[in-house]
Amino acid sequence: MKFKGKDIISIRDFTKEEIEKILDEAEKMEAALAKNTNLELLKGKILATLFFEPSTRTRLSFATAMQKLGGNVIGFDNVEATSIAKGESLIDTVRTAEKYCDLIVIRHPKEGSARLAAEISEKPVINAGDGANQHPTQTLLDLYTIRKLKGRIEGLNVALVGDLKYGRVMKSLAYALAMFKANLTLVSPLGLELPEEITKEIIEKFDAEIIQTDNIFSGIKNADVIYVCRIQKERFEDVYEAEKLQKSFKITSQMLEKTKEDVIILHALPKTVEIEPSIDKTKKAKYFEQVYYGIPVRMAIINLVCP
Amino acid sequence: MKFKGKDIISIRDFTKEEIEKILDEAEKMEAALAKNTNLELLKGKILATLFFEPSTRTRLSFATAMQKLGGNVIGFDNVEATSIAKGESLIDTVRTAEKYCDLIVIRHPKEGSARLAAEISEKPVINAGDGANQHPTQTLLDLYTIRKLKGRIEGLNVALVGDLKYGRVMKSLAYALAMFKANLTLVSPLGLELPEEITKEIIEKFDAEIIQTDNIFSGIKNADVIYVCRIQKERFEDVYEAEKLQKSFKITSQMLEKTKEDVIILHALPKTVEIEPSIDKTKKAKYFEQVYYGIPVRMAIINLVCP
Amino acid sequence: MKFKGKDIISIRDFTKEEIEKILDEAEKMEAALAKNTNLELLKGKILATLFFEPSTRTRLSFATAMQKLGGNVIGFDNVEATSIAKGESLIDTVRTAEKYCDLIVIRHPKEGSARLAAEISEKPVINAGDGANQHPTQTLLDLYTIRKLKGRIEGLNVALVGDLKYGRVMKSLAYALAMFKANLTLVSPLGLELPEEITKEIIEKFDAEIIQTDNIFSGIKNADVIYVCRIQKERFEDVYEAEKLQKSFKITSQMLEKTKEDVIILHALPKTVEIEPSIDKTKKAKYFEQVYYGIPVRMAIINLVCP
Repeated sequence: MKFKGKDIISIRDFTKEEIEKILDEAEKMEAALAKNTNLELLKGKILATLFFEPSTRTRLSFATAMQKLGGNVIGFDNVEATSIAKGESLIDTVRTAEKYCDLIVIRHPKEGSARLAAEISEKPVINAGDGANQHPTQTLLDLYTIRKLKGRIEGLNVALVGDLKYGRVMKSLAYALAMFKANLTLVSPLGLELPEEITKEIIEKFDAEIIQTDNIFSGIKNADVIYVCRIQKERFEDVYEAEKLQKSFKITSQMLEKTKEDVIILHALPKTVEIEPSIDKTKKAKYFEQVYYGIPVRMAIINLVCP
Repeated sequence: MKFKGKDIISIRDFTKEEIEKILDEAEKMEAALAKNTNLELLKGKILATLFFEPSTRTRLSFATAMQKLGGNVIGFDNVEATSIAKGESLIDTVRTAEKYCDLIVIRHPKEGSARLAAEISEKPVINAGDGANQHPTQTLLDLYTIRKLKGRIEGLNVALVGDLKYGRVMKSLAYALAMFKANLTLVSPLGLELPEEITKEIIEKFDAEIIQTDNIFSGIKNADVIYVCRIQKERFEDVYEAEKLQKSFKITSQMLEKTKEDVIILHALPKTVEIEPSIDKTKKAKYFEQVYYGIPVRMAIINLVCP
Repeated sequence: MKFKGKDIISIRDFTKEEIEKILDEAEKMEAALAKNTNLELLKGKILATLFFEPSTRTRLSFATAMQKLGGNVIGFDNVEATSIAKGESLIDTVRTAEKYCDLIVIRHPKEGSARLAAEISEKPVINAGDGANQHPTQTLLDLYTIRKLKGRIEGLNVALVGDLKYGRVMKSLAYALAMFKANLTLVSPLGLELPEEITKEIIEKFDAEIIQTDNIFSGIKNADVIYVCRIQKERFEDVYEAEKLQKSFKITSQMLEKTKEDVIILHALPKTVEIEPSIDKTKKAKYFEQVYYGIPVRMAIINLVCP
């Protein structure tokens, strides 16, 4: 189990033991943050954040994590202001950036782009989202949040709610939760189900039992964890179709009354209308705690792979 | 008088004593900068700068101040490249950002947005401009500059020149100068006077005597301080109207000859045509010194409120 | 030979001895980087990067260099998000920025803008490209790369290939190589030759012998160094003309077979089609090493001029 120099492209590249190692390291980082210790673990090191697509959360989260480790950050989040506007290939941008830094975080709209970047780069590459494909550090922080707030993952009833077809977050998370022996309930509108190849894969590989439904209420009533995702308008051909779905497929405070007392609601954010705003203030809503856990988890990942 | 954890939203939230405390702290910061001391007062701390509107000066000034204190900075100045483009609410953006940082600086086009952010956030929020409303750190650095260059504020003749109706800078400054017992002359084109509720407020509250005129020359001839502001084209319905006003309502070098020998001219910048360029080189022009004072003043504010 | 406080605007401002001093300092920086030493030479200092034009490489390279020296960086790369959008002059932007920082790096589309900035600013200004004019730190890193990889510059056969008329990189490089007594072969399409005043200048000043050709193959076959540049579509009136030239005027792997065994190919990047992609993997291609040398060279420059 060697992390130094390793790329973080897909949750599928990791064994259960490796994931547990990352979560354990994140625990240590969280403890260090709480003590307000000046960590200088990566002093003099540089992280390059190459963001070819909009993001607040992920970019700021990585920048925070690197700076909390004592390192520095360079990068861009504005494709117009870069050489890509002059016709430079992704390959050349990566070959250039790796000369300036010790490790790379990349977000790019094309599926497979992060894997390509990792093959080119001698420095470790962390995938911060490649189109509808993978976003492994999100999955790791999701697992961390569940383990932290519920004490374990195995045996928990987890409902994944929303667009399970296009959302990269859900596809990776379903896989990882099955690996950790959670019981999955997949709750999505007709036509937005988790792709069949993934359901098949996780059943065969992890012997998972999966319940599928398009009824939110029955899907969440026995859940220990409700993980909601946004129906992404930008992935739809027909915006009106998307808006109609968004309105009908959401968690209401009325629904929540009939769920378990200690259920937690998570969300990768940004959210729009899929959770009624009044829910934010309830103690079931844990998505902003989840945001916080992104810091120790990304600190752990950066610190493990940084050469 | 407790600053730790306090929000900085409006100059109206502060007593005269609190403002003097900030100015005194800024003096110490200026002295430390002059000695080129490596301040590590906020080592390991993170400031988030959330800029939903264009700004060079204010954003770079806060970033400089935080880094001079030994802290780090994350943030955005490009709304297109953030989750807001995906429909996230301001409330959720703030709730997210506060998980990554120790304090927040926000600029947003909507009036009241900074107050809203402060109510949501557990971390201190500094308002760096909310529409035509407030920009308290500008006012504090204005007061600092006047006190520094003239030795006092009380009893000075201060002429506020330009668009006093839409400019947030002038509205806060008029209030603060009245609080500090300066004599105010309000010089604005017809229709761009300081809103009556503010004039009334400061007369009642501070027993201020105020002169109003639309004649620049008579307005500035006895001034100790001339504070000029831009007529902001972007706040006008009719651009041509704005340009006409800009041309007729400006400080010329000819006018300056008849002013006090030791008068100082200030400006919050950016300026366009409201001060004749040849004036920049005279010793009456102090607006670039004023820019510099933004650093120690913002260092003082950040250091006082940062938890 | 005093560098402290000096502006870096054009390679023509430097004597051969001064350039050699910079290259020697860069050697030391490269050694320090290799040892992974925590340099804290510029701790507490701030570099402002004012980028009025797109750039990945140059901006990130300067940011990396400053941070490797222990300093901090502020700046913008997004003109829309700055006060320039409000009509502020370049002069005022520079006068403002210099109050926040210890030195300035500027890229601006207008020729002469960096010189203007340097005249205004009391802090040192480094030109990171002013239109089609100068980009001196690129030339310095080019010289460094050649000296490093070939052991010397004097007496080498250097072929400059591509658009020599509009490219600022080539104009400065031709001058500097002539100063260092390299033998120049200028290879460009008809109509894109190096401007005659430059050819004349370097012949008179350095007694240089220059070969000119529009035949790539004959131009590169005896070269020790082939320096290729992009034909910049954005400088052409007629995009189709530019694309036609780009296709016909490029280095192919077939051509390379007939060149010297130990020839090196350099490029300021970004490249598009002017070098066949398969060449990237050959040991003759050194342009990504060249990217790396930008770091120690810019560290040396920053450290020499920073007050």
